[in-house]
Amino acid sequence: MKAKVYISLKEGILDPQGKAVEHALGVLGFKTIRGVRIGKYLEIDFDATSMEKANKEVEAMCEKLLANTVIETYRFEIEP
Amino acid sequence: MKAKVYISLKEGILDPQGKAVEHALGVLGFKTIRGVRIGKYLEIDFDATSMEKANKEVEAMCEKLLANTVIETYRFEIEP
Repeated sequence: MKAKVYISLKEGILDPQGKAVEHALGVLGFKTIRGVRIGKYLEIDFDATSMEKANKEVEAMCEKLLANTVIETYRFEIEP
Repeated sequence: MKAKVYISLKEGILDPQGKAVEHALGVLGFKTIRGVRIGKYLEIDFDATSMEKANKEVEAMCEKLLANTVIETYRFEIEP
């Protein structure tokens, strides 16, 4: 199975990398930018016997390692 | 408008960060992992007068700044 995991900073958490990209886009002539937030995108190939188990497994991965749940939120999609 | 941009390494490009996460997940007990690839996920808030213009604008951002098209591919979705 293939899981696509999206991890982003929670609302209100400062995102200096996003601010830097926002500024750089402005310098390049993109003047209508209101905000940029940067997160992580992971593609995980793994084996699971059922969709339900796959969901639980990916959720455990996010909670234990992939996301820092104090400042980040995650969502994921699983393709069989 | 809000654009969600996904940037990932092209097939065949070495991804040491992904390998590190794959190894760490193995250590944590996730034994069925076959591979992990890590990319970037950006949310961009911006103004555009039409969907067509928005598409062109985000494509230009990706080509000019956000993605290194030599080693990375990008895709994006735009929400009004």
